[in-house]
Amino acid sequence: MHRNIVERKIMWGDLDPLGIVFYPRFYEWIDACGHLFFESIGLTLGDLWRDRNIMFGLAETSCRYFRPGRYHQEIRITTSINGLEEKTVQLKHTIRESKGDALLVEAMEKRICLDVSDQENLRAIEIPRDIREVLRAGIGT
Amino acid sequence: MHRNIVERKIMWGDLDPLGIVFYPRFYEWIDACGHLFFESIGLTLGDLWRDRNIMFGLAETSCRYFRPGRYHQEIRITTSINGLEEKTVQLKHTIRESKGDALLVEAMEKRICLDVSDQENLRAIEIPRDIREVLRAGIGT
Amino acid sequence: MHRNIVERKIMWGDLDPLGIVFYPRFYEWIDACGHLFFESIGLTLGDLWRDRNIMFGLAETSCRYFRPGRYHQEIRITTSINGLEEKTVQLKHTIRESKGDALLVEAMEKRICLDVSDQENLRAIEIPRDIREVLRAGIGT
Amino acid sequence: MHRNIVERKIMWGDLDPLGIVFYPRFYEWIDACGHLFFESIGLTLGDLWRDRNIMFGLAETSCRYFRPGRYHQEIRITTSINGLEEKTVQLKHTIRESKGDALLVEAMEKRICLDVSDQENLRAIEIPRDIREVLRAGIGT
Repeated sequence: MHRNIVERKIMWGDLDPLGIVFYPRFYEWIDACGHLFFESIGLTLGDLWRDRNIMFGLAETSCRYFRPGRYHQEIRITTSINGLEEKTVQLKHTIRESKGDALLVEAMEKRICLDVSDQENLRAIEIPRDIREVLRAGIGT
Repeated sequence: MHRNIVERKIMWGDLDPLGIVFYPRFYEWIDACGHLFFESIGLTLGDLWRDRNIMFGLAETSCRYFRPGRYHQEIRITTSINGLEEKTVQLKHTIRESKGDALLVEAMEKRICLDVSDQENLRAIEIPRDIREVLRAGIGT
Repeated sequence: MHRNIVERKIMWGDLDPLGIVFYPRFYEWIDACGHLFFESIGLTLGDLWRDRNIMFGLAETSCRYFRPGRYHQEIRITTSINGLEEKTVQLKHTIRESKGDALLVEAMEKRICLDVSDQENLRAIEIPRDIREVLRAGIGT
Repeated sequence: MHRNIVERKIMWGDLDPLGIVFYPRFYEWIDACGHLFFESIGLTLGDLWRDRNIMFGLAETSCRYFRPGRYHQEIRITTSINGLEEKTVQLKHTIRESKGDALLVEAMEKRICLDVSDQENLRAIEIPRDIREVLRAGIGT
């Protein structure tokens, strides 16, 4: 299975008054890691949009929180595909402490293939065959 | 069933390059609406923390996206309790277009009662009886 | 002088570990209030973009911080024009406590008129005469 | 002069509907780079707070914008001290394209030394002598 790994450091502005990560920040990071995952398998979403009027929008997202993230903690976000259907691809993200590997968050993004040629009217479409091949290869064996 | 309703307007900075809401913003709004819901039933989380060292942290969150949100659209976020267990309370949020009532997002936050007297070591606890009563009343009949 | 006033409540997610507003949030709010100010004088930036390929981008922004903002505090953001040049318009924003009127933040946004017909190459232009008239009227007398 | 350098990649969620960085994101990054700068000279703000009830809050911030930031562009943020007074230290940040070195943003943060032992009543104080020495060394020669 192909995995893409991103390391980052939790910053002051990511924290809430308890001194732990304000949870929407986790979603900002996994969204970014989704884009980086796609790029790592050869699908740059920015190019897909510009060249073919295709984007992968969100159908569903979720997170389960196991441990809080804290000031200047180093974390490691690992992304992989764990589902591929006609119109959707599902990403799984785990966020762990870089040092010690403790699990902070398990997350899921279900992304749906969109024809965005008319921005006022985004339309779900089947994932084109060539893109599906790249995604399938991205699942690995 | 008690519901708390918040109206807001989608702003430029909430949007992504497709001109639709960047999904972590929805989580920022429902987190805020969770706090406002608690306040509407007489539980101000800021006071709970200061007076009793109790907070409701997040165990799990999720969103399903039905329609995109767009520039200067007015939306209505409705929050209610749809689950109450020993240590957790679950909030349901729906985000609809104010005009026309079309559904944009359905969201869930599962919040867990925490003893935060030692900020370095947050500890899940049973929801104290008096707070449980307020939450139960907040479910309504 | 025309002023546009927006009331909002400071939320949990706006706060840093000290329990005070994380300062980039102030910029998010004044950006939003800039858009609302323009709308209040009859210039909806979203329409300007769609209809005429014009946007007001940022040349410069600044904030001075006088008092921190805190949990569930009600604030009032007042926006007005305090400068108009060939290519730029300058907005002044003040953020005050709604109750008691204490000053929290004074902010400035210098916005520059852009031709965005080629998104890869945004180009500063003179503010078109009719828009300048609307802005001038928005300064008031 | 001591400089601290941080590289980052502009992500989808940092962008506005024009496909360029929404400007409050720049402030989030320079705030983070301020903390990393302090850490690079041996002042970890998190420790200062915990051990000595001291923080460096914001008195003033500003940015000038020269070029927009775009999707998956690599940028380099360089931070240094460019002012030190009794109670305040001023940081200068420049944001440049990593490839080609073009200037995107010039930013300033004026930070004021705070006694935060009473969180309800933050109090500006003179920068303690030992911390001033570290900052002075951080200016370099």
